[in-house]
Amino acid sequence: MTSALPRPDVSLATVQRSLGDSSVEYPLWPPLTRGCPRTSTDAMSYPVEVDYDYARVGDDFLGRGLNGQPRGDSSGGAAGSRRAPSGHDRWAALLPPLLTPGLGEGGTPLVELADGVFVKDESRNPTWSHKDRLNRVTTSAAKGVGAPGIVVASSGNHGASAAAYAARAGLRCVVLTSPAVPPAMASLLGAYGAVVLPVPVDARWPLADRIADTFGFHTASNLTPFHTGHAWGPEGYKTLAYEIAAELGTPGSVFAPTGYGELLFGVWKGFAELHRLGLVDRVPRMFSCEPAAGGPLAAAVRSGTAAARVELGPTDAYAIGCPVGGHRGVLAVARSEGRALLVDDPAMRAAQRELADAGLWFELSSAAGLAGFRGPADEAAVRAEGPVVCIATSSGFKDLGVGGQRPAPVDPAWESVERLLREAGIGA
Amino acid sequence: MTSALPRPDVSLATVQRSLGDSSVEYPLWPPLTRGCPRTSTDAMSYPVEVDYDYARVGDDFLGRGLNGQPRGDSSGGAAGSRRAPSGHDRWAALLPPLLTPGLGEGGTPLVELADGVFVKDESRNPTWSHKDRLNRVTTSAAKGVGAPGIVVASSGNHGASAAAYAARAGLRCVVLTSPAVPPAMASLLGAYGAVVLPVPVDARWPLADRIADTFGFHTASNLTPFHTGHAWGPEGYKTLAYEIAAELGTPGSVFAPTGYGELLFGVWKGFAELHRLGLVDRVPRMFSCEPAAGGPLAAAVRSGTAAARVELGPTDAYAIGCPVGGHRGVLAVARSEGRALLVDDPAMRAAQRELADAGLWFELSSAAGLAGFRGPADEAAVRAEGPVVCIATSSGFKDLGVGGQRPAPVDPAWESVERLLREAGIGA
Repeated sequence: MTSALPRPDVSLATVQRSLGDSSVEYPLWPPLTRGCPRTSTDAMSYPVEVDYDYARVGDDFLGRGLNGQPRGDSSGGAAGSRRAPSGHDRWAALLPPLLTPGLGEGGTPLVELADGVFVKDESRNPTWSHKDRLNRVTTSAAKGVGAPGIVVASSGNHGASAAAYAARAGLRCVVLTSPAVPPAMASLLGAYGAVVLPVPVDARWPLADRIADTFGFHTASNLTPFHTGHAWGPEGYKTLAYEIAAELGTPGSVFAPTGYGELLFGVWKGFAELHRLGLVDRVPRMFSCEPAAGGPLAAAVRSGTAAARVELGPTDAYAIGCPVGGHRGVLAVARSEGRALLVDDPAMRAAQRELADAGLWFELSSAAGLAGFRGPADEAAVRAEGPVVCIATSSGFKDLGVGGQRPAPVDPAWESVERLLREAGIGA
Repeated sequence: MTSALPRPDVSLATVQRSLGDSSVEYPLWPPLTRGCPRTSTDAMSYPVEVDYDYARVGDDFLGRGLNGQPRGDSSGGAAGSRRAPSGHDRWAALLPPLLTPGLGEGGTPLVELADGVFVKDESRNPTWSHKDRLNRVTTSAAKGVGAPGIVVASSGNHGASAAAYAARAGLRCVVLTSPAVPPAMASLLGAYGAVVLPVPVDARWPLADRIADTFGFHTASNLTPFHTGHAWGPEGYKTLAYEIAAELGTPGSVFAPTGYGELLFGVWKGFAELHRLGLVDRVPRMFSCEPAAGGPLAAAVRSGTAAARVELGPTDAYAIGCPVGGHRGVLAVARSEGRALLVDDPAMRAAQRELADAGLWFELSSAAGLAGFRGPADEAAVRAEGPVVCIATSSGFKDLGVGGQRPAPVDPAWESVERLLREAGIGA
């Protein structure tokens, strides 16, 4: 009965390292929640990442992660035998210390579409989004510093995931959300016993800061002018790369819905680590897919800056509509020789429809990856090398408009039903 | 790029066999959708099951299923290499022929609660419920008989899952649902392009029958006075047993939310098969957990009949509130020396709350398994042998009341926020 226990001993994490200057490092503890203090200026914020003792990673890292620890006789055996690690615990060597129990995060399927494109279905996570990969790690950070709770500012997936992992860890959680949160998402946010406070968007970050100061809560949201977020969080997204590599080998291209660029960076870093370790033969090109209504990463790439701020117009892809970016995404695109794509709402809707017609229901933001790959006409120059993996981040339940209405009853008389079916093209 | 292709050649299915008289068998095709015609009478309906050529099952069945086909070098390797089978394809030998592509159904985690009880989190399926295990199989049956579509009567999970798998297979789907379907569930039902018709409950089965007759659609819902359902459907639930056995060994007891008893029967049959094959050393006791407001299985067990009908009182566990049962559940309880438990709504709410406090959000019906294990005071005689697995069937998004309202905005002034937090016990 050891599966729910953390195994911090196996982490090979060593220090925190600046993404503004890789010669600048900090001790692993405490996890930095305000970016790199030494390289950040009033004009630019730089994040930090986690470094590891890569020389001690075993050659069987991918295989162990896939198949688990030796389990002896897997054909039944004694009940109550020690289970193979699951979730993030499979990859604990290249993650920050895991001090809180998991919920079986990750292990999501690659579903192949008719034309051979793979969709990594992140709606199959514990709170039905990719954010669980991040929150397993940030919750452990909170536990490690002895914080009594976690505070996040989130309109949705991040907040729900933080609430679930805090509950699992026996920590309190405060979620500062928007009064405009979709109703089904509001039910999810409230499910795990967190204190959920809908406040105006601009009030969220100052309140998060003050709650952290006043109550000693650990912050799992950004607190800097450009996005730096939590030092450890994006490390959790590396497991996406490990899983894909173990199952498929290295893809040629990865398309990711992109808000602040943490997912994009984490997936790129995971592949870069495997390449450095000699476990894969290449690193995929990373394609960021931002809503055309904003696009701070595309703006930073265009202008050659470390991060950018843009006007954010209207978009229904609320989970990735960001007016401000961070340096992580710029690094992932540049170092992988990828591209920063923009996708508009109609393109995301078309991709969302295509996915639903294949039996996969995602929220609009989640379809940005496939929308980026399918590409608008003027993006014909995006010749993605295969295999292509599009990351789809979250269940359709989180979308705007979900739960807004019941369908109207229909007349059950056969003549009426038959007419409705024929109008829908059945029997034609 | 073969992963999306079905592999019907590996199924060892031989015949359909009556559960009313095991000497009565039928050819495998066509799949029977109205139970066993030879043993059923006006007074009782008997289902059929699928039989297999068990002598041809390899000793490595559980291991192969767990680790997949030999993949050569799993440490990266050439991109585009053949993937190991996933979802039901891992277990294709002991399933009916899989003629339609999967969505990575199953492979769900066992999450351990603080006291060592395991929760099998079926909300991690493609449409976020266990029903995906059934619909992969029934959709293949529909494809195999050349039906242009599938018709189901369902208030929720079954209909959504049928719609997704039909879409994946390129088949049409008609879902006859209730006008009282919860709003978020209605969004899910409508997501995959099915024709969704809300009609009065009593009108659903006659309409399903007529739609099947008129348009040649395959029915994936029950059409008999007592429940028999689809001959192949419960076979899909056997994969739950295979996964649990491969990961944990055989548990002592399994507690399952129970409506018509198909899940209970499928899990029991899966373990019974493994035991017959010598791959596990015992079969767990199966505990059915029905809403106390109804409980046709408990009634049948009490009265010693093959199946029973009861008055169904009010319950919010709408997914498993059934006035009529079937013979499958009776067989599973009797042959495993299990028990038929009743759980009331307060007990299910308490279990739902316990699960949410551990980071797991399920719909009320899904908590019936844990509620049955925790047990009301008068059920202290339930001494379950460990390890204990409680199956939790479906995401909290499917519950009544989800999406019903947005949270009220709060005053963002610090004094107001601090007061709210202290009232919630933070900083105490």
